[in-house]
Amino acid sequence: MNEKELSKYIRNIPDFPKKGIQFKDITTLLKEPEALRAVAEILADKYRDKGITKVAGIESRGFIFGAILAEKLNAGFIPIRKPGKLPADVLEESFEKEYGTDKIQIHKGCIDENDVVLLHDDLLATGGTMSAACKLVRKFRPKKIYVNFIIELAEIDGRKALEGEDVDIMMKL
Amino acid sequence: MNEKELSKYIRNIPDFPKKGIQFKDITTLLKEPEALRAVAEILADKYRDKGITKVAGIESRGFIFGAILAEKLNAGFIPIRKPGKLPADVLEESFEKEYGTDKIQIHKGCIDENDVVLLHDDLLATGGTMSAACKLVRKFRPKKIYVNFIIELAEIDGRKALEGEDVDIMMKL
Repeated sequence: MNEKELSKYIRNIPDFPKKGIQFKDITTLLKEPEALRAVAEILADKYRDKGITKVAGIESRGFIFGAILAEKLNAGFIPIRKPGKLPADVLEESFEKEYGTDKIQIHKGCIDENDVVLLHDDLLATGGTMSAACKLVRKFRPKKIYVNFIIELAEIDGRKALEGEDVDIMMKL
Repeated sequence: MNEKELSKYIRNIPDFPKKGIQFKDITTLLKEPEALRAVAEILADKYRDKGITKVAGIESRGFIFGAILAEKLNAGFIPIRKPGKLPADVLEESFEKEYGTDKIQIHKGCIDENDVVLLHDDLLATGGTMSAACKLVRKFRPKKIYVNFIIELAEIDGRKALEGEDVDIMMKL
């Protein structure tokens, strides 16, 4: 299955999480074994020669293909989470949301200067969370950071928030 | 690596999320590629001959090995989430927490009567969430339900809440 065929498994949800947003739901892809494996294979193939040592997934949907990718690439998996969820000492980064600020956290000591880190989330909307995640991971001074999404929302220029990052996105919907 | 060696990668966090609880943190295992892959292999081997067609992972940490297992077993992946997170029509189940009730949701139409479902979460504490997840999945009348955890807390009899279920747990800590 190629990207175009896979895109048919994505469900469009109008007005979620709020009016005016055309949300892209990957659960209709995840429940189909062939589609799940095809996405996993395409993603793993993209990064197989990049020497990835850690895959960081952003809570919660970024854990799904993030974890699969870590296992397939023989890398470790690092969860990036909302405040209060990670139990040990954390580093934190704030970012602007439409109303007020939000925060994400990562465990101290989970990445070092020898790591090549792949950051993964399922959906690029404004890019605010991923931009903060890049700043967070950069504090560990890893050798290199790659950024990956499955879907980019066509109606928002989310790539703008990630200028200068090495970004790959499977499909634009 | 066997279960005993793998258990050394689990970090004990005293008094998290609140005083008196010895929380077991799997992030120290997840970040080590060999340990991550060893757990994935042990779990997949346990269920390889069971005809699993869907793996349901419980938000959020249950998404990690849940997704890896789905991919390795050639099954679909189903997220079970807290209210407000799943964008389409859902089924819901309530359960008692120490203070008040909590709810979990699953998308309608994600499982059918021909499915064999593996429910996964990382940690068995009281068993309240998993017991509700079993009730939720049973509404679809699947052929069979299996329940899996990586860790069982030695100080709580969480298996009691799951009596009658087909439960497997990798380690008791």
